[in-house]
Amino acid sequence: MEHLNKLPFTAVEICGGFWANRQKINRETTIWAVKDRFEDTGRFAALDFKPVPGLHFFWDSDLAKWLESAADIIAKGPDEALQAEIDDMVDKIEAHQDANGYYNIFHTVIEPDNRFNNRDHHELYCLGHLIEAAVSIFQATGSDRLIRILDRYIDYVIERFCEKADTGFKTPGHEEIELALYKLYAVKPEEKYRRLAKFFLDHRHEDSVPADFWCGDTYFQSHQPVREQRIAVGHSVRANYLYSGMADEARVENDEEMLAACRALFDDMYYKKMYVTGGIGSSHIGEAFTVPYDLPNDTAYAETCASIAFAMFANRMKDLELHSKYADLVETEMYNGVLSGVSLNGKSFFYENPLEINLEDRTRHGDTKNSERLPITERLEVFGCSCCPPNLTRFIASIGEYMYSYDENRIVLHQYIDSEAVVDGALITLETAYPANGTVHLNVAGGKGKTLLLRIPGWCEHFTLNVPYVMQNGYAAVELKEEVTELTLELEMKVRFLAARREVRHDAGRVAVAWGPLVYCAEKKDNDELLWDLSLDTHSEPVVVYSDYFGAPEISLKAKVRESFDLKALYLPLRDVKYTTVPVRLIPYYAFANRGSSDMRVWFRYI
Amino acid sequence: MEHLNKLPFTAVEICGGFWANRQKINRETTIWAVKDRFEDTGRFAALDFKPVPGLHFFWDSDLAKWLESAADIIAKGPDEALQAEIDDMVDKIEAHQDANGYYNIFHTVIEPDNRFNNRDHHELYCLGHLIEAAVSIFQATGSDRLIRILDRYIDYVIERFCEKADTGFKTPGHEEIELALYKLYAVKPEEKYRRLAKFFLDHRHEDSVPADFWCGDTYFQSHQPVREQRIAVGHSVRANYLYSGMADEARVENDEEMLAACRALFDDMYYKKMYVTGGIGSSHIGEAFTVPYDLPNDTAYAETCASIAFAMFANRMKDLELHSKYADLVETEMYNGVLSGVSLNGKSFFYENPLEINLEDRTRHGDTKNSERLPITERLEVFGCSCCPPNLTRFIASIGEYMYSYDENRIVLHQYIDSEAVVDGALITLETAYPANGTVHLNVAGGKGKTLLLRIPGWCEHFTLNVPYVMQNGYAAVELKEEVTELTLELEMKVRFLAARREVRHDAGRVAVAWGPLVYCAEKKDNDELLWDLSLDTHSEPVVVYSDYFGAPEISLKAKVRESFDLKALYLPLRDVKYTTVPVRLIPYYAFANRGSSDMRVWFRYI
Repeated sequence: MEHLNKLPFTAVEICGGFWANRQKINRETTIWAVKDRFEDTGRFAALDFKPVPGLHFFWDSDLAKWLESAADIIAKGPDEALQAEIDDMVDKIEAHQDANGYYNIFHTVIEPDNRFNNRDHHELYCLGHLIEAAVSIFQATGSDRLIRILDRYIDYVIERFCEKADTGFKTPGHEEIELALYKLYAVKPEEKYRRLAKFFLDHRHEDSVPADFWCGDTYFQSHQPVREQRIAVGHSVRANYLYSGMADEARVENDEEMLAACRALFDDMYYKKMYVTGGIGSSHIGEAFTVPYDLPNDTAYAETCASIAFAMFANRMKDLELHSKYADLVETEMYNGVLSGVSLNGKSFFYENPLEINLEDRTRHGDTKNSERLPITERLEVFGCSCCPPNLTRFIASIGEYMYSYDENRIVLHQYIDSEAVVDGALITLETAYPANGTVHLNVAGGKGKTLLLRIPGWCEHFTLNVPYVMQNGYAAVELKEEVTELTLELEMKVRFLAARREVRHDAGRVAVAWGPLVYCAEKKDNDELLWDLSLDTHSEPVVVYSDYFGAPEISLKAKVRESFDLKALYLPLRDVKYTTVPVRLIPYYAFANRGSSDMRVWFRYI
Repeated sequence: MEHLNKLPFTAVEICGGFWANRQKINRETTIWAVKDRFEDTGRFAALDFKPVPGLHFFWDSDLAKWLESAADIIAKGPDEALQAEIDDMVDKIEAHQDANGYYNIFHTVIEPDNRFNNRDHHELYCLGHLIEAAVSIFQATGSDRLIRILDRYIDYVIERFCEKADTGFKTPGHEEIELALYKLYAVKPEEKYRRLAKFFLDHRHEDSVPADFWCGDTYFQSHQPVREQRIAVGHSVRANYLYSGMADEARVENDEEMLAACRALFDDMYYKKMYVTGGIGSSHIGEAFTVPYDLPNDTAYAETCASIAFAMFANRMKDLELHSKYADLVETEMYNGVLSGVSLNGKSFFYENPLEINLEDRTRHGDTKNSERLPITERLEVFGCSCCPPNLTRFIASIGEYMYSYDENRIVLHQYIDSEAVVDGALITLETAYPANGTVHLNVAGGKGKTLLLRIPGWCEHFTLNVPYVMQNGYAAVELKEEVTELTLELEMKVRFLAARREVRHDAGRVAVAWGPLVYCAEKKDNDELLWDLSLDTHSEPVVVYSDYFGAPEISLKAKVRESFDLKALYLPLRDVKYTTVPVRLIPYYAFANRGSSDMRVWFRYI
């Protein structure tokens, strides 16, 4: 097993281009938009331990992710207003912590007698998110106040779960605390943290399903010991938070058995259960994985949080096993499945990320309360279960986290983001307009004698590099022989047509269009045709034009479409079908539904 | 408006071929299989007015349709056992009729205080089916005993609904009594029957929706006066029973306004809301129509009863307006949407008739109680709502009803069934193997001076006729100049490929295969390929071989299918997709799922 070190995002300065723009929107707009919505819905008021209407047992986690996001933002530049919010929140958490260390708004205000009794009540999940926030605050400001507060809570959890074992369940219904404890252990290496995380992983399968729970134990990934799991099942966010914790355990404990499980679980998702956008969890029922290759486009669940969680898992795996598929997955999520979750202006969100919208389906059944379950088509400013917005803010604020790994001999560059970073003593300046084009300039000052590994993305069929290299598991390995090395990597970008393997029923006979890591879609808004009737002409010359509005290129193609006719006939002889050629405008998938609801499609028939 | 007379099936002798075989199975097997299941479920025991478990307010209608079927069967050949059952049932109905004429098992045994109070409780619907049974018994045996019993009930209905107007609703929640009253009026022309039918039609829109009902008033077709309706809405069986009654009213009252509504409603279904199999009511939600061209194949509801009801409506329309589309629709239903409802051995049934089955979809969500709503894939011997089986038995027993119309100048032949019939004094002998092939021999003895109109099916692109003719609205009109005329009609049958118009999203880029009136499907059982991956080669030479098992030809074609490959990749460059050619075996749609559940598909991609 590899033990590469992940470079923290605090060591990376995003300078310009695609992600600097996204971070600016995140810092200036999104973090406050989420805060406003959390105030509107009473989440911030609940911090005063008032019985706010709608107070839910997962509100602590929403607040914690917001807190983590705020800390991640100030880590890259001071912001007095955010700092004040952070201080205020930590004050309130401290003020309302029980004498025994316990802290949970819902289970103090609403159900104080039901603590640690219902496995699906997210108390440990909320603690996990608070721990992640505490680590972010510590990294951003050096203050370990929240860590110390939570340390008392962790002691109480150890007492109740490990020592007295008098709780209503053994392990969390929603995983998260495991990865959080390992994250805490990385900055405060107390043995009790890793022991508790391992305890939850080791005993996970011993819990029975809550009697009143409608799903089976696969929903919770409790159906078998985690080290024996090979198939991704159940709630896809839960699953990937668990797998992230498992990968952490594999690394910390040097647990090859756990790594083998992680490897298989990653492959099961990556090769059998992932939309071309990176979306996972294809069914809204249980927000869950189903069977291999079951990837319906119009009913796709593909929760934003699931894409984030899959990226988190992959980001751990990339440091345990040098293989470019892990960073490929991260890239797919960054530019598609995650990013589609937030609007271009940073103010509204998608929880679900379908790959096809047919608005008329929504009018089929006059009475919507009886309509079949279809994803929402309009970006919303807030939703009841609001896990995704603050997950997006922390993901974007910490995007630098996905760029570099290193050990004593190697520096590994996974993602091409315009930036400066200090990696194990070497100053690396990266200039690029990626993903608008594939030209990457690198200036590496320092690191002489080490090997620099540059990921060649899976989507890239041809590339050039101005220095000698050898390929290693999808990375171009360059020996750094000088004090300063100038590199130019040209990743050839062109419009690509992708097919799904034949087992994917819903994409049979169809293509998706891609440009670099970006998957494209067509919206009815731009195309005055029945989208389902378009057959893309894969032999026509695409026109690719950069769009400021979308922050990436648009693509124009030709398509064959049936002529409409005056006959009433519903069915007609095939030979009477006549075609005409029309232009089709494609935009990045992540930008769909930014100009209102519209029919939308990723997979097209083709000629 | 035309006023053609429909020849009753009692005047038609089905002699051989496709339908003689089906009638034999119906008489020997199906009628008794349905009786056995109705006994198992307590329906027959309920005739003794016992509080049988599960006793439902629609059971009278199930029993009535069985009674009607039994009468229709004995009309074409004596059967002592069936006659005894009929007598016994009529005895019981008479014995349990209230002094005031009322008769309903559920509302006597279970809810006697709730009579005529809940519009959705099917009392008038049940009466309608009893009236249809009474007419069938009268036609089969000459006995009007059940008519006399029901005449007292009808008087009571008139008293309560029309005179006192003291009932909880004005018009039936489930239409049926209207067409039944017109059917009764045709054999017993009492003015009160037609007045009551017209009353229910005229006042239909005045009822408000039951307060506790989850659907809107479109579900009941009560949203506007029937003469103003132009769009088929709501529950598709209810709708077509209503439209049948409306067509009867148009004829009896010479009501052009009503005919205009019927014409528009027919066209709305026929040109916008009908599967290629004739199935209507595409959504299981409300078993209802949705928006135009919304015809999903895998979730198709397309209830067997809805196809029967549409055929009943069309069979009325064909006599009000000479246009072959009406009999074309009847034919489509006869050979596809209706017939798929019963197994080849006559023992098991489909309520829903999907056009695509992907069995794996059923395993997607481990816990079936939470699975998305998909049609059942296995033919069942009985279901809770068992309207379809006895609807099929009466449809098949009375299939001759759809063959001929006539008036003083014309004899119109709509359906090509091997038979002898006396039509207004002319003896017509029809010999054919239709739909195995398109050769029809006719010997017409009598009818000299009249015009014989032979329907040229809409599916038929070329035909020959051995006598002079002129075309009239889809019919070849032949002057009968001799005492005996011998005609040979050759309807060219060949494998046809059909496309749906471009507005039908779910069929975009696909073809259906047809042979004469038969629509075909492929079952996984016969094709060792992923059905969704087949692209039919529409230029390959089809092989058509008659199958005794299916009672119709099988079709073999070539198809392009992707090669499978060893790579793990879920998505791959389009240019790496390789194809191979495989044979595809297609069977008549009506015969699907006769050899167990299997993946099945009607619409294919094609080259």
